[in-house]
Amino acid sequence: MTARQQIHLSDGRELFYFDDAPGKDRSAADLRGLPEVTNVSERRWDSLAGEWVVIAGHRQSRTFLPPADQCPLDPTRDADHLTEIPAHDYDVVVFENRFPSLSTSTPVESSLHGLFHIEPGQGRCEVVCFTSDHSGSFASLPVPRVRTVLDALINRTVELGRLDGVEYVFAFENRGEEIGVTLSHPHGQIYAYPFVPPRMERTRQSLREHHDATGECLQCNLLEAEHGDGVRIVEKGSHFTAYVPFAARWPYEVMIVPHRHVPDLPALDEAELAELAELYPAVLKRFDGLFDGPAPYIAGWQQAPVRFDRDLWHLALQVFSIRRAPGKLKYLAGSESGAAVWINDIAPEKAAAALRGETV
Amino acid sequence: MTARQQIHLSDGRELFYFDDAPGKDRSAADLRGLPEVTNVSERRWDSLAGEWVVIAGHRQSRTFLPPADQCPLDPTRDADHLTEIPAHDYDVVVFENRFPSLSTSTPVESSLHGLFHIEPGQGRCEVVCFTSDHSGSFASLPVPRVRTVLDALINRTVELGRLDGVEYVFAFENRGEEIGVTLSHPHGQIYAYPFVPPRMERTRQSLREHHDATGECLQCNLLEAEHGDGVRIVEKGSHFTAYVPFAARWPYEVMIVPHRHVPDLPALDEAELAELAELYPAVLKRFDGLFDGPAPYIAGWQQAPVRFDRDLWHLALQVFSIRRAPGKLKYLAGSESGAAVWINDIAPEKAAAALRGETV
Repeated sequence: MTARQQIHLSDGRELFYFDDAPGKDRSAADLRGLPEVTNVSERRWDSLAGEWVVIAGHRQSRTFLPPADQCPLDPTRDADHLTEIPAHDYDVVVFENRFPSLSTSTPVESSLHGLFHIEPGQGRCEVVCFTSDHSGSFASLPVPRVRTVLDALINRTVELGRLDGVEYVFAFENRGEEIGVTLSHPHGQIYAYPFVPPRMERTRQSLREHHDATGECLQCNLLEAEHGDGVRIVEKGSHFTAYVPFAARWPYEVMIVPHRHVPDLPALDEAELAELAELYPAVLKRFDGLFDGPAPYIAGWQQAPVRFDRDLWHLALQVFSIRRAPGKLKYLAGSESGAAVWINDIAPEKAAAALRGETV
Repeated sequence: MTARQQIHLSDGRELFYFDDAPGKDRSAADLRGLPEVTNVSERRWDSLAGEWVVIAGHRQSRTFLPPADQCPLDPTRDADHLTEIPAHDYDVVVFENRFPSLSTSTPVESSLHGLFHIEPGQGRCEVVCFTSDHSGSFASLPVPRVRTVLDALINRTVELGRLDGVEYVFAFENRGEEIGVTLSHPHGQIYAYPFVPPRMERTRQSLREHHDATGECLQCNLLEAEHGDGVRIVEKGSHFTAYVPFAARWPYEVMIVPHRHVPDLPALDEAELAELAELYPAVLKRFDGLFDGPAPYIAGWQQAPVRFDRDLWHLALQVFSIRRAPGKLKYLAGSESGAAVWINDIAPEKAAAALRGETV
């Protein structure tokens, strides 16, 4: 049973310990005496794209690949190396990012001058450390620890969704220097956005249109179709299926989808969470098994918007790697970054076979 | 006056020489005896995103950073090094990519099974070599050569737009290994897509909505607003203005926009082309001047769709770099690649000042 304890860091940020079991003393204080940081964040309306862009001008100086003995995500094991986590050990810990892209206290005010529309970049960015073991990985966590991470994500999804102005809670993991990860300690992030992200907004529209046309859920129907086809399935459990999407954008991409139509992580039941805690790392291990060494990947939870169309939504976890071959990465160049046309050089059916471990 | 000559490569692909002036003999034949390649390309409908994704499964084995003495984009200077360009010299040359993402002869057929919709990846991908000088760059071309490149793009925009099933012609340059460029020889590309790319489709919708609401062009109005504000302007000519967009997504991003409301490159007049041939490389030089060495950048021409809403469209060239500081790149990680929320760490006004060469 996951146990939560809360402290405040010396600059006022919140930190939450999530332990696999109760009984641990996590009361150690942050002795760094950090000054409070003003995080100037704004969002600007891109009138050509019809989307918000976040401008966070203070983040340029953030920590960049520190040496392993100065990792800010290690627990504070001795007084010479005071880290972001005051306790001498932890299971899972979540805390507010010191250099967040979005902030509940940004001093920016709304302004609208003709076509130029600025709103405060309100929201919150949290860091989730999966383990105190600096050299571990999410895929290699013991199952009970994965379960604790999931409990932490559930707790944060609920609590962040209650904050004023938060419209969407996005939990994700970036793994690998190849995708720009600046800290190698196993960790994820949670962004609480003041708007529904463009990708989820387009999904919402598709779910809405399909529901209006058929009375059914597009994600449910896609899952049935994938079960029928079979060729793109990577893992199939009693409650979740992992499959390569029919129109995958990335060389190796998997959707992990619950069989039950649920809006978000907090809606999963005990049996579902128990299976997910095994299936999720099993899928990540399949990515690591593809080529030379640990796969660079992004894993992101597509949850329902906080305030509307929650019944419409069907939870999904998207996992994708940018490695397309040993030593070769998929870059987003002119077609993708300039025109938003994804070119995938690997047929989804072949990617699924490779992820299943078949010789292709 | 640009002179065009056409040949066919030994596998049947078309190649066009565009010379700064007439009178050059470009009749040399391709002696390689290349076998014809079948390019299996398809597009699949991503029903959650409501967008096409191109699957080009044959491209995995394409040429990857060959040594400089084996560059396939050099002219064929001797019989021991037969390249893609049979002539012993050239000014500008355009030819069909041997490993294209889209192909007029793809054997894929349409199929629709429930939610799974496949269409042939019809279209064409061309390579544009800007100079026979392997170590040159677009920014350092003499102005008359830039003019020849523009003439080549105009010619290809017109001719590719006439091909069956082509809905959009996108000319772009990827520059720098940092964004995955596999050949360092100065070159660009032209993709003729069988659909309007998602980014341009969203722009089209915004232009349509703004026109319906105001009777005016959003791009024209944005240009007026930028002229009024002034702070984001990088270069201002008589016919073009280069400015950092108000809601820039990339650390350094510039839009080069003609003052006259024109749909595409072929619609530019002589005076406009003459100015563009100076202003375009001048803007690229500003990118190169930002940090340590040549900037990795993507430059893409946002032209009107081939067949509809051409009156609505206003031509623009988007140029952006992924370098955010010396030795540091902007990566697209969880927020951008997973949720499509761009986080820009550099205020557009500061980026514009830096591009103008001001100390910031």
